[in-house]
Amino acid sequence: MRITLPQEKPQDQLASLLNHDMVKVNSLIKKRMASDAAPRIPEVTEHLIDAGGKRLRPLLTLAAAEMCGNTSPYHIHLAATVEFIHTATLLHDDVVDESKQRRGRPTANLLWDNQSSVLVGDYLFSRSFQLMVETGNLRVLDILANASATIAEGEVLQLTVAQNLSTTEDTYLKVIRGKTAALFGAACKVGGVISNAEEKIIDALASYGDALGVCFQITDDLLDYNGSSADLGKSIGDDFRERKMSLPLIKVLKKSDVTEKEFWKRTIEKGDQQDDDLDFALKLMTKHNALKDTHNDAKFWAEKAKKSISILPKSKLRNILTELPDFVVNRLS
Amino acid sequence: MRITLPQEKPQDQLASLLNHDMVKVNSLIKKRMASDAAPRIPEVTEHLIDAGGKRLRPLLTLAAAEMCGNTSPYHIHLAATVEFIHTATLLHDDVVDESKQRRGRPTANLLWDNQSSVLVGDYLFSRSFQLMVETGNLRVLDILANASATIAEGEVLQLTVAQNLSTTEDTYLKVIRGKTAALFGAACKVGGVISNAEEKIIDALASYGDALGVCFQITDDLLDYNGSSADLGKSIGDDFRERKMSLPLIKVLKKSDVTEKEFWKRTIEKGDQQDDDLDFALKLMTKHNALKDTHNDAKFWAEKAKKSISILPKSKLRNILTELPDFVVNRLS
Repeated sequence: MRITLPQEKPQDQLASLLNHDMVKVNSLIKKRMASDAAPRIPEVTEHLIDAGGKRLRPLLTLAAAEMCGNTSPYHIHLAATVEFIHTATLLHDDVVDESKQRRGRPTANLLWDNQSSVLVGDYLFSRSFQLMVETGNLRVLDILANASATIAEGEVLQLTVAQNLSTTEDTYLKVIRGKTAALFGAACKVGGVISNAEEKIIDALASYGDALGVCFQITDDLLDYNGSSADLGKSIGDDFRERKMSLPLIKVLKKSDVTEKEFWKRTIEKGDQQDDDLDFALKLMTKHNALKDTHNDAKFWAEKAKKSISILPKSKLRNILTELPDFVVNRLS
Repeated sequence: MRITLPQEKPQDQLASLLNHDMVKVNSLIKKRMASDAAPRIPEVTEHLIDAGGKRLRPLLTLAAAEMCGNTSPYHIHLAATVEFIHTATLLHDDVVDESKQRRGRPTANLLWDNQSSVLVGDYLFSRSFQLMVETGNLRVLDILANASATIAEGEVLQLTVAQNLSTTEDTYLKVIRGKTAALFGAACKVGGVISNAEEKIIDALASYGDALGVCFQITDDLLDYNGSSADLGKSIGDDFRERKMSLPLIKVLKKSDVTEKEFWKRTIEKGDQQDDDLDFALKLMTKHNALKDTHNDAKFWAEKAKKSISILPKSKLRNILTELPDFVVNRLS
């Protein structure tokens, strides 16, 4: 009798295949997150380390390097770097969004204060910068510096278009390219660069990361409306309450009639929200296929990601990276 | 008849002597502070540019480079870099301190919101990082990455020792080395490094910047108690109200008797402050020579700074830099 095991999630497969390197990355992260001078720093960072997270970005760097036959020892530094940048942006995001929960746990700004989150975020960002300087590779420095600037631009743009009902899908894409896809793209690209891969391979990795990041964020924004708290580690409807112009909202707005638009004006533009408004928002989104259309967009980007790395030599890692976008999109099914 | 003109301030002398380069620095700053993607960014940064400030840190970089016979074009990039890092930390500081005034104008967090200040600060920090990567000089990257981490550590340490009456002068020194002296030191040091100066010259420049920064911050903390609003561009007694453990307070605490200590416990530890408490605090500081002793400490660091650069070849710039620490200390007379 043959037993069919449920297939392991692609990121878990990545984690076990790259475990040898991830142990080194985690140890480097732990070491560099510490600070002798200011004991508050390890308190906050340990809270974040314990919260875990999937470490998807450093896994992408390690996978990209491995697929390109890397021989440099600095892929470990780069993997830690992208996780530091990611963690720094999470700390600042939670201040900006006044979030109370992250990965199913209270956020640092709730446990300590906004001040600590701002300054410890700055510290982690500086630490990431030190790590990448140690690689001595100016090209990866350039890539990561550009990614950092794009992330910050995306975050500011998101802030300024919040509550603006005329936000277009193009603007939304610019926001998520910044806040999410830039780091996914850079994480993959630097893995190729540090391994001295051919330019077309480096480009393919960058495109893969970019498309995966877009797909990841669109799915995240969709789950905010139709996921479950357990999937998200945060509460359903956060984006609605924070009046964020995410894709499901942009799509439903486009199809809403005059009366329905009044609902969106009251709840999103003016922020006057009642208890059952989220339910009604979901009803409108279902009525106008906004959730389904958003899901289709996520699938489009998943296909794009998969196609990007098809030029890489066949390997176990390439297979897993090819499965990953579909898995990301299907988190909601 | 000979007319004696009042002596020009050293930083004004620096500014006119280095005007040719500063024009380039200002133009680079203006160009790189912009953002096509997020219009909020130039709004906030232009507010900061207009507010001016002395641009002391970039002037130090230019002066150091010039004194070392610099031939690289990248001293301009480095001068802009240190100003960007400085501006980014100001934006975050004002959020952390909940400040309402900076350089005599409303702060960005007051004009826009904390969110914008956090994210635009991140943007400027990323931009500074891009600028320094463009120099292609790994050693200056290393120096500035370390300075950034030290700044963040100093800021976190300051946050965690606020209101703690047992804070020592050593801890205070660690805080200001981070929040102020690290960038002064790095600003001077990279000027030497980019010019391929001898190691002992580079070390001398780093020591000068460090001591000048310590002297600058001690004086600033003193002025917070006995300056005038016009000198500061902020309100007298801010540190008292924010219950910051600055040097005058640490010094007066050491000499306070049991009854006086109760006053400090109430106002600083518990934060229960009445209208005339600042006056009484100043009376105690005068009684125990805390302001005078703080001034003496500032003078000690001024001497240290001056001595550090005495090994540099004689020049007009060296003369000005030698006058600068005394001028900083005597802002209060």
